[in-house]
Amino acid sequence: MERKILLTDCPDAQGLIAKITNICYKHQLNIIHNNEYVDHSTGQFFMRTELEGIFNDETFLMDIDQALPAGSHRNLVDTSRRKRVVIMVTKESHCLGDILMKAYDGSLDVDIAAVIGNHDKLAALTEKFDIPFHFVSHEGLEREAHENQIIDIIEGYEPDHIVLAKFMRVLTPNFVARFPRKIINIHHSFLPAFIGARPYHQAWERGVKIIGATAHFVTNDLDEGPIIDQNVKHVDHTFSAEDMVKAGRDVEKTVLSNALSQVLEDKVFVYGNKTVIL
Amino acid sequence: MERKILLTDCPDAQGLIAKITNICYKHQLNIIHNNEYVDHSTGQFFMRTELEGIFNDETFLMDIDQALPAGSHRNLVDTSRRKRVVIMVTKESHCLGDILMKAYDGSLDVDIAAVIGNHDKLAALTEKFDIPFHFVSHEGLEREAHENQIIDIIEGYEPDHIVLAKFMRVLTPNFVARFPRKIINIHHSFLPAFIGARPYHQAWERGVKIIGATAHFVTNDLDEGPIIDQNVKHVDHTFSAEDMVKAGRDVEKTVLSNALSQVLEDKVFVYGNKTVIL
Amino acid sequence: MERKILLTDCPDAQGLIAKITNICYKHQLNIIHNNEYVDHSTGQFFMRTELEGIFNDETFLMDIDQALPAGSHRNLVDTSRRKRVVIMVTKESHCLGDILMKAYDGSLDVDIAAVIGNHDKLAALTEKFDIPFHFVSHEGLEREAHENQIIDIIEGYEPDHIVLAKFMRVLTPNFVARFPRKIINIHHSFLPAFIGARPYHQAWERGVKIIGATAHFVTNDLDEGPIIDQNVKHVDHTFSAEDMVKAGRDVEKTVLSNALSQVLEDKVFVYGNKTVIL
Amino acid sequence: MERKILLTDCPDAQGLIAKITNICYKHQLNIIHNNEYVDHSTGQFFMRTELEGIFNDETFLMDIDQALPAGSHRNLVDTSRRKRVVIMVTKESHCLGDILMKAYDGSLDVDIAAVIGNHDKLAALTEKFDIPFHFVSHEGLEREAHENQIIDIIEGYEPDHIVLAKFMRVLTPNFVARFPRKIINIHHSFLPAFIGARPYHQAWERGVKIIGATAHFVTNDLDEGPIIDQNVKHVDHTFSAEDMVKAGRDVEKTVLSNALSQVLEDKVFVYGNKTVIL
Repeated sequence: MERKILLTDCPDAQGLIAKITNICYKHQLNIIHNNEYVDHSTGQFFMRTELEGIFNDETFLMDIDQALPAGSHRNLVDTSRRKRVVIMVTKESHCLGDILMKAYDGSLDVDIAAVIGNHDKLAALTEKFDIPFHFVSHEGLEREAHENQIIDIIEGYEPDHIVLAKFMRVLTPNFVARFPRKIINIHHSFLPAFIGARPYHQAWERGVKIIGATAHFVTNDLDEGPIIDQNVKHVDHTFSAEDMVKAGRDVEKTVLSNALSQVLEDKVFVYGNKTVIL
Repeated sequence: MERKILLTDCPDAQGLIAKITNICYKHQLNIIHNNEYVDHSTGQFFMRTELEGIFNDETFLMDIDQALPAGSHRNLVDTSRRKRVVIMVTKESHCLGDILMKAYDGSLDVDIAAVIGNHDKLAALTEKFDIPFHFVSHEGLEREAHENQIIDIIEGYEPDHIVLAKFMRVLTPNFVARFPRKIINIHHSFLPAFIGARPYHQAWERGVKIIGATAHFVTNDLDEGPIIDQNVKHVDHTFSAEDMVKAGRDVEKTVLSNALSQVLEDKVFVYGNKTVIL
Repeated sequence: MERKILLTDCPDAQGLIAKITNICYKHQLNIIHNNEYVDHSTGQFFMRTELEGIFNDETFLMDIDQALPAGSHRNLVDTSRRKRVVIMVTKESHCLGDILMKAYDGSLDVDIAAVIGNHDKLAALTEKFDIPFHFVSHEGLEREAHENQIIDIIEGYEPDHIVLAKFMRVLTPNFVARFPRKIINIHHSFLPAFIGARPYHQAWERGVKIIGATAHFVTNDLDEGPIIDQNVKHVDHTFSAEDMVKAGRDVEKTVLSNALSQVLEDKVFVYGNKTVIL
Repeated sequence: MERKILLTDCPDAQGLIAKITNICYKHQLNIIHNNEYVDHSTGQFFMRTELEGIFNDETFLMDIDQALPAGSHRNLVDTSRRKRVVIMVTKESHCLGDILMKAYDGSLDVDIAAVIGNHDKLAALTEKFDIPFHFVSHEGLEREAHENQIIDIIEGYEPDHIVLAKFMRVLTPNFVARFPRKIINIHHSFLPAFIGARPYHQAWERGVKIIGATAHFVTNDLDEGPIIDQNVKHVDHTFSAEDMVKAGRDVEKTVLSNALSQVLEDKVFVYGNKTVIL
């Protein structure tokens, strides 16, 4: 008995759930969990179906393809293959540390192929966990040349996802285009508040009573990509900007790990500039 | 075009989603929202399907009944009929007030048939909203005689649900048995902590850092019925028991209104001593 | 025995707490609660001291004034006088309703002098609670002429604070200047995200996973005044913009009532564009 | 210039704040932060005063002692000395991992002297951070003999605090008595709900909609010691007991780290069975 996940993303049409579940039934695949959602504002249908049974992928997907309308996307994910990620960092350790620890104890079912830093500060921490660390300094390099070095390293690992765990440089459209819908970033504010640099200092200046963090897919528009997860923490007037930075760390790492976990479990559909999480 | 909700609650079996959605498709009923859940620990299947179309209830339900296994419950709810509730209170106004206000402005789609109090303190508030208030004092009455008076009033209104909005008396098994799965209570603690009387005083004695409230269906076991919703609020050492009582009011009223809203929208399945909310 | 609150707001200096508490001690005033805060980034000192005893206001304040450095503000508030507010509304009832209910049952210790609406939709609700409602339509009036009518009504009541409980018009600098630091607004977003009109629709467009509300003092910069309180609620892809509007109501009313409560208890110091809440 | 913290815990009396702050002023010590609290139900006074200046500890404390009533406790803490902890674990790594990581990157200002496990599963993780791990198996040992081995190890390190980071054995009164008010435990439920073993399974059985974690000082009454911090996470019917265990990890580690942080910063007063956190 294998377990696979059928992901369907297509224009809505009458009878879609019936058709898809009929095909599962006909193939004697047991539905363990099923979630579907229709966005009625745009008429898009999303379905995530966890199946158990003996799979003949070819004939099953042929049946599925015949049932779906034109313009459909579908994917059958084998859950027995562990996903691979490359993590990019600068100097701050809390998000990297949380992912390392969760991969180490199995809370996150993921293979961390490598960590890449534009500083070498986190090399020692990474290597404690027997994971290769690549130090690619941006010093004295044009932005594109620097990114190309990183791209070469990433492509050598063929990762499913790239995680920006407090990587503090803005990526060029060229870089982003190389890994469409694969790059996950943690932004240290409750987006769209405080886009850009030093969001905690902006928050402190504004006198907010809550700070937050946002995990999102990276697109070419800075801090504008599809949001996966957000969370917040109450603060008050006694917090300096530095206190906010410190208080925000637990929120940042929890939001990033949670977003990554949902992505790794194939629960996240990207759709326009939004996510549907089933 | 009508809108109805099909509720299915039955032993799990292969192909259930396919069968049910096929029948909807065959009857040309459009699925607006669909949620289902299988409890794998007990093998129970739950499904809530919002449908739009021209209904022939008789033939549709005949088809559904043939498709479902033995021991199934199903219900087809007409959303155009507004549900009716009777509210029971003692002296505190915040939960009653929130429901009155939300019914008044349409946030809760409900018809408040009447309010019954074992004190008359909330008569004036109730009558501001042109809703009948029945004062049924328990003074000088045996518990059963008192409850029988209340039962008579309730039965005169034929409510879908009875809401205990800070009704501060324990109900007898006789009362509870008259309205199975219909009575919703707000308990002013994060159950199962602080069962019974004066939970905020118990919480203060214990020195907790969070207080909470729990909305649940009433069964014969005090504060042990199926939980519908819970929420909490942070407190600290500066809170006296009275401060906790005051701080808890917003949590209580929000939890009760939210639970009631979900029940009114037919999202809540009771199942053993738990709820499944679809 | 009377109870009064001494509020001190002045440049920081060595020995301030000692000097102020010495004077209280000398006047045989018992300190019931005391909170102080120094903003070290600007060197400003804030102190809120709840006192009990027999007060000779004149000699006590003379002593305090001598102890404080130049540029100090201090105020001795008599807690036995109930504060008076005027509420301004448009069409939505949830914030008004919550304040009416809390004033009715004593959860908010406040005298609601009047409600002013630029629509008459909430007249009936207001009058249920025996509070005068003034309908001042903006139809056919220049903005200034409309505001002047409202100003005249407000000034007739001499309120301590003006509460914008979903008043959906932007106020002119002239209006704001008439009531400095007295106007409290609820903005239906987690500021500074989604400044301006239709914030829930902006939030829905952006695909956020959390919505929020912000209570703040009104200054001339739209939605930029000192923040008093904020809170949030998790949402997901299933929420339409209208669902967000509905879900946000409980957050909005709770945040506004909580902010108002803190202001009424003289806990909120305005300072630059921020608040210090003691 | 040194920085020290004066902690005062004594019966309330008129003029206490004035007396203490006068002495600070007289000794030319600048008050950086000050917080005080009076529990009016028992008449106990608590004060935490962060001071900066040139300290003559002897004369300063002599003055303080003369000012305080009989039965007072006071302590002057030198913030330049880093506190030392010993951590006790069983098999689960998330709480240990979070503390190791925060000590590593400086988020927690603490010296982890050693980790003691009744299993050896976490030895490798501990040693990655160059911290000694002591494996003290309980196999084949009487409870007291086992604890005595642990006590010997702990006493060799002279720690300020002992952190039970998911140590899954109940400690005897003998052990607890050796380290009064020094042992901090994380309990994986929202106490006092679900005292004792397998709280997530109890929570799942009960059908709760929120799970939580509680950090508390350990006393002889199981799970009954003074609570330092609590937090919660929403769950729903889709969570199995195992899902709750997994979802609870982030709450547990955050609550424990936060409680430890407050203890290390000398913000926590233990008082009866409660804490006052200034």
